[in-house]
Amino acid sequence: MLKKRPHFVVMGGGTGTFTVLSALKAYDVQLSAIVSMADDGGSTGILRDQYGVLPPGDVRRALVALSEASVELRELFNYRFSSGDFAGHSFGNLFLSTLEKIQGNFGSAVEEASRILNVKGNVIPVTLGNVRLYARLQDGTTLSGETNIDIPKRGRSRAPIDTVWLRPKAKINPHAEKAIMDADVVVIGPGDIYTSIIPNLLVSGVPKALQQSKARKVYVCNLMTKFGETQNFTAMNFLDAIERYLGKDILDIAIFNKKIPIPAVRKQYQKERSELVDISGLTLVDKKQKHIVADLLDPGPLVRHDPKKLAKVLLNL
Amino acid sequence: MLKKRPHFVVMGGGTGTFTVLSALKAYDVQLSAIVSMADDGGSTGILRDQYGVLPPGDVRRALVALSEASVELRELFNYRFSSGDFAGHSFGNLFLSTLEKIQGNFGSAVEEASRILNVKGNVIPVTLGNVRLYARLQDGTTLSGETNIDIPKRGRSRAPIDTVWLRPKAKINPHAEKAIMDADVVVIGPGDIYTSIIPNLLVSGVPKALQQSKARKVYVCNLMTKFGETQNFTAMNFLDAIERYLGKDILDIAIFNKKIPIPAVRKQYQKERSELVDISGLTLVDKKQKHIVADLLDPGPLVRHDPKKLAKVLLNL
Repeated sequence: MLKKRPHFVVMGGGTGTFTVLSALKAYDVQLSAIVSMADDGGSTGILRDQYGVLPPGDVRRALVALSEASVELRELFNYRFSSGDFAGHSFGNLFLSTLEKIQGNFGSAVEEASRILNVKGNVIPVTLGNVRLYARLQDGTTLSGETNIDIPKRGRSRAPIDTVWLRPKAKINPHAEKAIMDADVVVIGPGDIYTSIIPNLLVSGVPKALQQSKARKVYVCNLMTKFGETQNFTAMNFLDAIERYLGKDILDIAIFNKKIPIPAVRKQYQKERSELVDISGLTLVDKKQKHIVADLLDPGPLVRHDPKKLAKVLLNL
Repeated sequence: MLKKRPHFVVMGGGTGTFTVLSALKAYDVQLSAIVSMADDGGSTGILRDQYGVLPPGDVRRALVALSEASVELRELFNYRFSSGDFAGHSFGNLFLSTLEKIQGNFGSAVEEASRILNVKGNVIPVTLGNVRLYARLQDGTTLSGETNIDIPKRGRSRAPIDTVWLRPKAKINPHAEKAIMDADVVVIGPGDIYTSIIPNLLVSGVPKALQQSKARKVYVCNLMTKFGETQNFTAMNFLDAIERYLGKDILDIAIFNKKIPIPAVRKQYQKERSELVDISGLTLVDKKQKHIVADLLDPGPLVRHDPKKLAKVLLNL
């Protein structure tokens, strides 16, 4: 059993991280979110290009997840303009980027936004370096930019991802290092592994901190594969990809879903060439590692982790 | 002498109102700012046109004036983008307009922003009607829109303003009415009379509330004339213009500056065809009315009211 008010560090970036944070927020735990800084698509990409700021999008999602401010204020941060000069921009992104311009420092901007949003816990950019994500495919093609790696152009098939890296090289944010060292549990994922999860592990100092920390390191595997990024991936492929960048013998626990969504729901996903992750071939390579296979499925029309089911597993570690 | 913690209501909209609010904020007084809702230029005008929102600019200035939040947060609200998709926009305007879009109500947006900015006192839009300002010149020309009345096109001379009105007709915000009725002192001005001050008096219910309120009603006259709007205006012309829209026998006190700026400073203003307001012809038409003529000049390079000198006069009423 965990100590009375355990410190959970959640590492990732996208909606998966939002789910884990929202799930754990309801409980008496200390929470830190360490988020990827490789995003360069959409509103975030335009802000980076036009204003030379660091990517606000993933930080914004984590801030809203942990906010205990009024509904209005949380809605404000998530508000996206649908028309006019600002079409596509998220107000929260703009908020963070403007604060960064004023303070000359993204870290202080996140702290100020955390105060305004009355954030329970800490949101920590994994690095304060201005990095871009690159990928080499198995056919030798190089892709530059998180958004190009995330979604194949015009929905065309492409070769699987061979390797990803950040340029320039980035150093871990000291606050992220401190949180990892202080943690009781580090939850990695769920989320797009090459574009949300591994970009954290690519930051110099992150795998080492995870290795040195006494925290239990937990990987929460995705429910579905994703066209382009993890097409045909089995649960074992996900785990292997994480361990390739994190190092072997570091993960203590890996958590997988066993519940199969109803056919009508799966059919929706087939249109996007997204399939349920196959857990049948799971094998324990590392004897220390523990695999938890449970029903983690949200009963709604989207294939998502159910926050309550996931929280229950995480709190019973 | 005023009671221990007198309630000052400051009515206007632009930088003059900002000065009065900043001046009084340092003292133990209750403060309400009632601000014009006729602005339609610059960032405010674009937001009104593209997003159908009410004008945020004057409210934002008043909020920042009364804010007791961190310097960063006040800077954030006044930050103006100089390039990119948001070029020319003020962040605070965007904040208010986005909140209005979410809440569907400008009044609630102002209240939420007041909480975030830790505002000392209240900022109250004079009306929640969506109004535009119109002017007829003495040569019969009609101008539509505050920004067209404010600054003559391409710096060309034009006929003096004959009359101004709002369309559609607007009703007083009940919070504004309440503040006026509760006030010990109502300070009208300084500020552009046709584009910042009188647009408040044009709102149905405002002159009546001022007439019924037991507050002392004070007009603070501008220091300089303004090309197009108040060219060649004497102090008496300013006072007459206000009384034409407010009604006779309502102002208790009118405050004028007697200090003449140094020639180098005046020369700068001559380029903009702006002259010191001539106070030589001041006459007391209404026997009840009191005229205060004092040195109110800020010693800096801009012809501005000195907040401390002005506060001293207002607090000694």
